[in-house]
Amino acid sequence: MSRPPLRVIPLGGLGEIGRNMMLLEYADDLIVIDVGLMFPEEEMLGVDLVIPDFTYVRERRDALRAVFLTHGHEDHVGALPYFLREFQVPVYSTRLTDGLVRVKLAEHRLLDRAELHVVKPGDVIRAGVFEVEFFQVAHSIPDACGLIIRTPYGPVVHTGDFKLDHTPVMNQHTDLIRLAQVGAEGCLLLLADSTYAEQEGFTPSEELVGHALRNIMAEAPGRVIVATFASLISRVQQVIDAAVATGRKVFVTGRSMIDNVAMAQRLGYLNVPEGLLIGVDEMRSLPHRQLAVITTGSQGEPTSALTRMANGDHRHITITKGDTVVLSATAIPGNEHAVFRNVDNLFRLGANVLYNRVANVHVRGHASREELKIIQSIVQPEYFVPIHGEYRHLVVHARLAEAVGVPEGNAFVLTDGDVLEIDDTCARIAGRVPASYVYVDGLGIGDIDQHILRDRAHLSTDGVVVVIATVDKLTGKLTRPADILTRGFVDEAEQSELLDQCREVVAKSLALADHIADFGEVNSRIKDAVGRFLYERTRRRPMVLTVTVEV
Amino acid sequence: MSRPPLRVIPLGGLGEIGRNMMLLEYADDLIVIDVGLMFPEEEMLGVDLVIPDFTYVRERRDALRAVFLTHGHEDHVGALPYFLREFQVPVYSTRLTDGLVRVKLAEHRLLDRAELHVVKPGDVIRAGVFEVEFFQVAHSIPDACGLIIRTPYGPVVHTGDFKLDHTPVMNQHTDLIRLAQVGAEGCLLLLADSTYAEQEGFTPSEELVGHALRNIMAEAPGRVIVATFASLISRVQQVIDAAVATGRKVFVTGRSMIDNVAMAQRLGYLNVPEGLLIGVDEMRSLPHRQLAVITTGSQGEPTSALTRMANGDHRHITITKGDTVVLSATAIPGNEHAVFRNVDNLFRLGANVLYNRVANVHVRGHASREELKIIQSIVQPEYFVPIHGEYRHLVVHARLAEAVGVPEGNAFVLTDGDVLEIDDTCARIAGRVPASYVYVDGLGIGDIDQHILRDRAHLSTDGVVVVIATVDKLTGKLTRPADILTRGFVDEAEQSELLDQCREVVAKSLALADHIADFGEVNSRIKDAVGRFLYERTRRRPMVLTVTVEV
Repeated sequence: MSRPPLRVIPLGGLGEIGRNMMLLEYADDLIVIDVGLMFPEEEMLGVDLVIPDFTYVRERRDALRAVFLTHGHEDHVGALPYFLREFQVPVYSTRLTDGLVRVKLAEHRLLDRAELHVVKPGDVIRAGVFEVEFFQVAHSIPDACGLIIRTPYGPVVHTGDFKLDHTPVMNQHTDLIRLAQVGAEGCLLLLADSTYAEQEGFTPSEELVGHALRNIMAEAPGRVIVATFASLISRVQQVIDAAVATGRKVFVTGRSMIDNVAMAQRLGYLNVPEGLLIGVDEMRSLPHRQLAVITTGSQGEPTSALTRMANGDHRHITITKGDTVVLSATAIPGNEHAVFRNVDNLFRLGANVLYNRVANVHVRGHASREELKIIQSIVQPEYFVPIHGEYRHLVVHARLAEAVGVPEGNAFVLTDGDVLEIDDTCARIAGRVPASYVYVDGLGIGDIDQHILRDRAHLSTDGVVVVIATVDKLTGKLTRPADILTRGFVDEAEQSELLDQCREVVAKSLALADHIADFGEVNSRIKDAVGRFLYERTRRRPMVLTVTVEV
Repeated sequence: MSRPPLRVIPLGGLGEIGRNMMLLEYADDLIVIDVGLMFPEEEMLGVDLVIPDFTYVRERRDALRAVFLTHGHEDHVGALPYFLREFQVPVYSTRLTDGLVRVKLAEHRLLDRAELHVVKPGDVIRAGVFEVEFFQVAHSIPDACGLIIRTPYGPVVHTGDFKLDHTPVMNQHTDLIRLAQVGAEGCLLLLADSTYAEQEGFTPSEELVGHALRNIMAEAPGRVIVATFASLISRVQQVIDAAVATGRKVFVTGRSMIDNVAMAQRLGYLNVPEGLLIGVDEMRSLPHRQLAVITTGSQGEPTSALTRMANGDHRHITITKGDTVVLSATAIPGNEHAVFRNVDNLFRLGANVLYNRVANVHVRGHASREELKIIQSIVQPEYFVPIHGEYRHLVVHARLAEAVGVPEGNAFVLTDGDVLEIDDTCARIAGRVPASYVYVDGLGIGDIDQHILRDRAHLSTDGVVVVIATVDKLTGKLTRPADILTRGFVDEAEQSELLDQCREVVAKSLALADHIADFGEVNSRIKDAVGRFLYERTRRRPMVLTVTVEV
């Protein structure tokens, strides 16, 4: 009898950016790689977060052996609290990732019951039939790793998020030697980051940003205010280095930036000279030429420190002519509008604003096409699955892989929920498991469905009109004019005539009632009549809600 | 006594992209350049269009002499129907622009009363004290022009939207000689397109796209389906040329594309060999290798032909493996999500999809930095106002102008509504006129305000909860449990317990009523109690609407 197949099951990150989660399964052993979250897309109105669908893990609860985290970004670890609330399972990650996860679990009051293990590159963890080895990769957060997973069919390489940076900030190279060893041995399957599979050439080194920041700080006549991701510790280090080199002190603002800088300093991930970081009082006493500020808000988040500066309501920093603001980040898709509104407002306040389109103040954390080719050439996998990308990125990456050596037909473009089975003879998509978007809204997890989102979309378009009809329980006729309430539809004061006419429409729609119709019918009669009348008069389609009160 | 100043008043397009409109005023003469519309931004929920604020024109109605249109794009002519509904004034534009305007005015039943004049480059129109000359520019629509406006203080140059393309498709060059003559004569003021003021270098020529389209059609194994803007007639010509060169027939789909191709053919703006355009029946009978399709939908518009193909519900075209889809357009900011959803879906259906990031299938219609410098060097204006751009584009463009010769302090970054006054001695921002966003929603023009938009935003986030309390008119107590209706908040069936408790909260909030409180107070008491209860239980803040019915 033949062995059971190895099963590879993405539950997130394939066909969308974010919410990365991948299962590997062999017989009665199941391991999880990353448990990330996704920020809601435009049409997911009112949703706070989107997490992966754990249905299949629930069904295979007894087989679950361990969770492995590649690095500490939200799209790889953000849904872990929701996962650990349900599943008691050991979690393995490197030191900084573990630090970030602990902060998160503490917020969710889950730290006590979580079984967290810190590993370092080169460590091998046994999880059922699997042996999982961490290897270092260059990415836009320290301690990022990929995984080499030994399976009964041979080694699987999961790159995590990576690029090849030969002059990285904190000496965090992608371990090409280890990958080449796996390639020499014979790699069964490569899973590789597709985020920038459309981008020709090489992703520039972080070194470029370091030079740019130093030049900016050397030449700026006043304060230099740098906004970046709070998790981009290496960038924070670059800002600190540039400040030191140009004789500036550094003020840190924004809650998550303050927390992360403190945590990174404590764990030894930031090298900060004594006395460099200053408080508000010292900042106020120093000439602007001797100041640098590190802040949150690079994504235009409404309550972030940079947005407050741009709106002129930051508690400690009032933007003036002579200030230089550096956006050392790219706008994540969906955030462009908010980011550029800040840029515009900062310009209006007189600041010089430097951002990616006009200065080399950011480089991406993901590999471009030439780097992806190098990985393919070194690992030479038998099978390939592009991960981490929208569908087109995966397609483009699969083609690239076939162009540089993956046998035709052996590159599989999967979608969340697809089950790829690999055995001794071949690989094939063998089925699907549930992998829908699970919405978190307030305390609700998974209770928001398409129906509710459609209602929110309708409400957002033309508002709501509520009609309360008080009818006589014997005759079914109105006992007094209907009450009408609107929100988000028209200005009620200006449109009192329209609303008066609407009350008449309600009256007319019930005038023919000569017996007691059931409430459902009365309501839908009123609703139709009012909806039609309002559309004719305004060409708008508010949501009409009708309540009949019988007296 | 000194002469009155020349006044330059932007009513749109400065600080935003779209809705271009500019006033020039001298004593009792007022002229208008462009009357464009803007598509609503994300937070303008349910708004159909945004048009300029005509308040100041209304006040100066007697001074209004003429409207000049630079070209036929919506952001330059789209609000003309709303303008001509109010103001009886001659409109001057080139032939294709006029054709597009006529279609639009006919839709609004305004064609009869409009006074439309067709001009050609070189024509000079007298409008009060002003003399306005049209000059040709290269842009992504035929017949695009800039304007040279003679004023009592000297000539003003308005570039319209332009780039410098030395190998344009329809021989439509930017008239550098005419601009150099104005420069030699001494230009008072230059108003120039800032859209790509951040972009280094030169915008590539349309020729590049022509080559790419021809290569794609030569090599594609099946149909080639090209999506572009319906107004981008020169691109349509390029598709036709490529089809002719590679032995393909052309099928046109999408209402606005069909209309525009017909109009452009009629007016002689398209060169189409006899028998090249085919109908559905012929399309069905031809092998895919001999077919090209031109379609709308390059912006992912929900009901467009390309979106229907991507969703598998186009009436005549079912995407299959072997099809090549070309997106010959860039996603306008705000449309990226819809555009890339189509790309992903087309890939899923098996098509090869070519778009800007992976092939040279589109070039922009606006000048990049090196081109902007050339215009500055040729025109050498005394004063400069960057137009057509978000605020940061204007700032960057003003700096560029000062770097290449505009005297320091003579480049003015204006915002919509600013009044720039120029006289014999200087120029200065002398005041403001109303220039707010005027929202068109259905039949309503300008009746949607921030208050209504805030309500829509609130409704879209957590939905609405309607509470109807029927109270005894003597005691002020509930006569029966409150009626509660929700939309977009929770699943009512799953949350019946929550709603039951909510009814109890209503009852409790009225239990203390020992006299007849006024309705306003009763309503706000219920509203507060319900809002608080629901937030505690769900961490959501639906809009709570309360109606008290007295019986």
